[in-house]
Amino acid sequence: MSDDKAMVIFQPSGRRGEVPKGITIIEASRLLGVDIEALCGEKKVCGKCVVRIEDGHFEKYGIQSNMSHVSPWQEEEEKFVNAERREKGFRLGCVTTVEDDILVFVPEESRAGKQVVSKAARDIFIEHNPAIKLYYVKVDPPSFEEPTGDFERICRGIERDYGLNNLTIDIFALRQLPNALRDGKWEVTVSVWKDREVIRVRPGKQEHTYGLAIDVGTTTVAAYFCDLTNMEVIDTVSMMNPQCKYGEDVMARITYHMTTPDGLQRMSDDIIEGTNELIDKAIANTFPPQKKVKKKKGEEGPDEYVEVPEEGKTYLRLTREDIEDITIGFNTAMHHIFLSLNPEHVGMAPFPPVIHHSLDIRARDLGVKINPSSYMFVLPIEAGFVGADNVGVLIAEEPYKHEENQLIIDIGTNGELVLGNRHKLISSSCATGPALEGAQLAFGMRAAPGAMERIEIDPETKEVDYKVIGRDAWRKFSEPKEMKAKGICGSGILDLLAELYSAGIVAKSGVFNKKALEGHARFRINPDNKQPEFVLAWAEESSIDKDIVVTQKDIRQIQLAKGALYAGCKLMVKRMGLEKVDKVKIAGAFGTHVDRTKALVMGLFPDCEIEMIEGVGNAAGDGCRAALLNVKKRVEANWCSRNVEYIELTVETSFQQEFMEAMQLPHMTDEFPHLKGIVPDEILNQ
Amino acid sequence: MSDDKAMVIFQPSGRRGEVPKGITIIEASRLLGVDIEALCGEKKVCGKCVVRIEDGHFEKYGIQSNMSHVSPWQEEEEKFVNAERREKGFRLGCVTTVEDDILVFVPEESRAGKQVVSKAARDIFIEHNPAIKLYYVKVDPPSFEEPTGDFERICRGIERDYGLNNLTIDIFALRQLPNALRDGKWEVTVSVWKDREVIRVRPGKQEHTYGLAIDVGTTTVAAYFCDLTNMEVIDTVSMMNPQCKYGEDVMARITYHMTTPDGLQRMSDDIIEGTNELIDKAIANTFPPQKKVKKKKGEEGPDEYVEVPEEGKTYLRLTREDIEDITIGFNTAMHHIFLSLNPEHVGMAPFPPVIHHSLDIRARDLGVKINPSSYMFVLPIEAGFVGADNVGVLIAEEPYKHEENQLIIDIGTNGELVLGNRHKLISSSCATGPALEGAQLAFGMRAAPGAMERIEIDPETKEVDYKVIGRDAWRKFSEPKEMKAKGICGSGILDLLAELYSAGIVAKSGVFNKKALEGHARFRINPDNKQPEFVLAWAEESSIDKDIVVTQKDIRQIQLAKGALYAGCKLMVKRMGLEKVDKVKIAGAFGTHVDRTKALVMGLFPDCEIEMIEGVGNAAGDGCRAALLNVKKRVEANWCSRNVEYIELTVETSFQQEFMEAMQLPHMTDEFPHLKGIVPDEILNQ
Repeated sequence: MSDDKAMVIFQPSGRRGEVPKGITIIEASRLLGVDIEALCGEKKVCGKCVVRIEDGHFEKYGIQSNMSHVSPWQEEEEKFVNAERREKGFRLGCVTTVEDDILVFVPEESRAGKQVVSKAARDIFIEHNPAIKLYYVKVDPPSFEEPTGDFERICRGIERDYGLNNLTIDIFALRQLPNALRDGKWEVTVSVWKDREVIRVRPGKQEHTYGLAIDVGTTTVAAYFCDLTNMEVIDTVSMMNPQCKYGEDVMARITYHMTTPDGLQRMSDDIIEGTNELIDKAIANTFPPQKKVKKKKGEEGPDEYVEVPEEGKTYLRLTREDIEDITIGFNTAMHHIFLSLNPEHVGMAPFPPVIHHSLDIRARDLGVKINPSSYMFVLPIEAGFVGADNVGVLIAEEPYKHEENQLIIDIGTNGELVLGNRHKLISSSCATGPALEGAQLAFGMRAAPGAMERIEIDPETKEVDYKVIGRDAWRKFSEPKEMKAKGICGSGILDLLAELYSAGIVAKSGVFNKKALEGHARFRINPDNKQPEFVLAWAEESSIDKDIVVTQKDIRQIQLAKGALYAGCKLMVKRMGLEKVDKVKIAGAFGTHVDRTKALVMGLFPDCEIEMIEGVGNAAGDGCRAALLNVKKRVEANWCSRNVEYIELTVETSFQQEFMEAMQLPHMTDEFPHLKGIVPDEILNQ
Repeated sequence: MSDDKAMVIFQPSGRRGEVPKGITIIEASRLLGVDIEALCGEKKVCGKCVVRIEDGHFEKYGIQSNMSHVSPWQEEEEKFVNAERREKGFRLGCVTTVEDDILVFVPEESRAGKQVVSKAARDIFIEHNPAIKLYYVKVDPPSFEEPTGDFERICRGIERDYGLNNLTIDIFALRQLPNALRDGKWEVTVSVWKDREVIRVRPGKQEHTYGLAIDVGTTTVAAYFCDLTNMEVIDTVSMMNPQCKYGEDVMARITYHMTTPDGLQRMSDDIIEGTNELIDKAIANTFPPQKKVKKKKGEEGPDEYVEVPEEGKTYLRLTREDIEDITIGFNTAMHHIFLSLNPEHVGMAPFPPVIHHSLDIRARDLGVKINPSSYMFVLPIEAGFVGADNVGVLIAEEPYKHEENQLIIDIGTNGELVLGNRHKLISSSCATGPALEGAQLAFGMRAAPGAMERIEIDPETKEVDYKVIGRDAWRKFSEPKEMKAKGICGSGILDLLAELYSAGIVAKSGVFNKKALEGHARFRINPDNKQPEFVLAWAEESSIDKDIVVTQKDIRQIQLAKGALYAGCKLMVKRMGLEKVDKVKIAGAFGTHVDRTKALVMGLFPDCEIEMIEGVGNAAGDGCRAALLNVKKRVEANWCSRNVEYIELTVETSFQQEFMEAMQLPHMTDEFPHLKGIVPDEILNQ
């Protein structure tokens, strides 16, 4: 091995390889494809990337690993690694650099887990008018009397049979044409984009064509796989956004671009590669599952794998080329990174994007591997902090077609807000931060197995009951060791604060009600950071061998998020000159799981009747799907992006005041009449 | 070295490398980048690829070469290698396979020489209306009041200043936009394609943009490098078509595609790479020539090379990205091969092309390295044998704008004919074969140094005077050894037949006039093939140490070519119901050098007044240039391609009869009244 390289082995994944000496362990993990949590984007503030450097000679790998093979201890690490753990070799991955061969153990809480994404397609009404239409045409073979070229020949046939003219053809489709015509014995099916350009030619009569509507979130990527000819959703596929390793939120990724020479390219490559993996997944699902069968001695057959079709199920057996259209939406920063557009200015006031308008980009120009002549329709964006995802929400929910005033809240890593009706629409964004999605909390995590997603607290005993993802039974119906809890995810957090408040554990100021908790086993002062904390699950119930707690700091984080959201909503209502909104729609993964009562208890948005609160699930994805299946929705999307007035809330003079007030949990004033009867009077009136 | 590989060394180039055993010497030459003439495309009929296998141990290279290291002698070789030369190790390169290490000597006559291409730009009138226009725009920086995105911001500026709206932008140009705007302090110059799409953004005020008009011939590729803003032709660059190694004519290349699995890809890659080399050449010429200066001891300065600018000359110092537009024309087969379109059907009756219409293809989609967002405009084609090159001729000469009937003849490897006026135009092609360009003749060659390009024969003495390319002085003003003649090129052939006929050496039937030649030193019967031949240059005047002769078979080849051309012209005139044409225009390299009198003597086309015969040079290239500088010419080109009626002459019943008759040299009948006084009466009346 050369002097400037070191061998690094990650456990438990077993991934290993040579890396340049001097890079951080997080950088090494990226090079070797190991996903370690890096929520803060290596700003050394989240402490999620703690790893253990093993000591000893590992014969299996032929290396000698030693704590001294990394850079010396840094002051910044003390916040996250106490003396005892330091002894054991624990270090902060974004600080510690590789100086010689090491074996690194990544504890479970530092692993970027496999997230459970539930974005099933909702039933929404979409007019059938896809960008891709199929035209079957039969022509005469060429003769000396009529030696016209292949393309003009089929154009004449299409004009004769369908009245469509002035078609052009992409060079990649043109290359298929002569063979398709002859293989099909002068009968072909032509895929035409927007009644304008031929993007595929197949021999004979073909009746189906497919497309994907992709919704790229900061954290997750989900796609609807649709049959463009009958609008059927064949499948819903999803995955983690592979950019998570560059930081949990958009600012961390913009910073990564600004501090790393090829950072933008790397992040762009990663999400494009991820998109291709998602496409592969969608395609693979159209084949019967393959089962590995050991070939018996003397048995014939070239393949070790056999297909095991489900009985009675028809498999489409599609190829990548069968995907002829894609619509895609994202927030502005993800949009820019996906397209390799400099995202720097989106992160700095006054946050101008590089472009608002939608784009039709050939998939091949982005390296997305579908039918090579096909386009990707990139949804337009409204503003620096209100992206194409919000345009997706708008064209799915169509508030501009209604008289009633709707407040649409899309809670992702950022909160995006739209308010209005068919007369006027305004939008804004508020920096909720990722707390509502589980990040930045001591035990916050993504919606992955082991995450607490439902929490109830008995107001009398203040005992905690909860449910984790991956297990149906609640805590009180289980043995402790069966729970394997690991942390709290977004939907659990909404429950958590509402329950802490309703059970009298925290006051409306968010401060622990020390008097009420005195002597309670679950309440304690953390010996390391001297902060009060409340135990949600005991170590024996966890898979990480630690008590899972909510700290005073966590509660502050959640309050900041909900305060920003509430203040944003309130200022918008004021700006529109409204007294109240007629309907509140909550979109995003948050909206799918939302408990309307608890959302109201939390005070996420101005008071309204519970019946008028509606979870609209993945409305951004639905908007992408609408644009996929109805080309007119694309025009509507561009209209939306330029006709919804964007309001920068942080420059409003009253914002700070509203924000501070909204940090409080809701109280029995005029502002929340609908809470009466939901939260006990003695709590509301405390 | 592994058992299945052999070392092959080519002399005099010295190129060498390992090749798989069993491939032919021609295949090995391609692998190692040695250009050997292969006029027939390895159909074993042209005999141009004769090479010599050396015998002996070559210490310098560490190999033992031996005649037995190649495949056994084949009957097909006897036609081209006589017993004496066979003894010496001469073999046919397309037949002989490599079986072990060999050193191969390529005789000068088998080397594919570096051609002299003279395609300087003619002065033609072109209206200035390029597809690419520059718009300089100054905008306000974004603010909280006006945080509009970069693209919409410049669009608004362009609309305000130039009234241009509804612009789109290519993703590659979009990526330049944010930095260009900020580098230019909110002033940029935008290149817009067809007033429709932004294809480049540069900071500040820019006043020039450049383009190339490329004319891809079967044999040569030439390009006009133009300033699109002032129509100036900055440079004319040219090169050999690198596909020549796959065969001299289009049929040979189509055959190569049909017989070689990745043949089309290989040929396409070669011409694309060639195009990039041509672009590099054009770019390199915009810099001062670099002169190597040896650094003196103790002298400072980091570079061994210094630029030597010509005094008073301004150098543009351009980059590939400064080329923002390309127009390109070719014959149908070259068109298909360039674009990787299956050319198979263009070579088979009824010869339908894949497409007629012009194409706008992004340069990057073809791998052509210019400004990445730019398009290449591919000129439309008329028919299988009348390509985009002929459309180029049409839009340059514009016969459809005149009342007089013009006959336009473009003699390349194929003859392309257009006849008509503003009321009607018909086109056709005739298989002249490459004889008129010098191929398929015993000593035919390309227009390269050493090629006889002018020939005069004294009718009395029948002595030959001639001029070769690369030397100004004619034979009679030179010492024999100064001539270094190597063969005869296209323009020499036209002279040759006219002179042979006028001097009474051949009869109007084309047969050697044995009686008149009896006992003449230059006339003899070849001992090998028993054919009569006439010596044009003696061995001492040649660089190949052989007498350069014209054989009876050569004369037949030329007669076939001129017969096809004449019959084609005549049938077209008949078809149009004309008695005579008003003007004859001769395009192509042939047309540049044409001696009008001799063309008439040859009987290349129906009789007309000598004054009405005009050489129009590289009209195909001029047409490309017109399309580059005036976008309306592109529309005109498409109109031409579909409104010129293509006539397949070979299916006309009278074609064979006319063809046979036209093989004769012209005679003093009604058909050629204008020859009287040019050719001696005794010859005309013989």
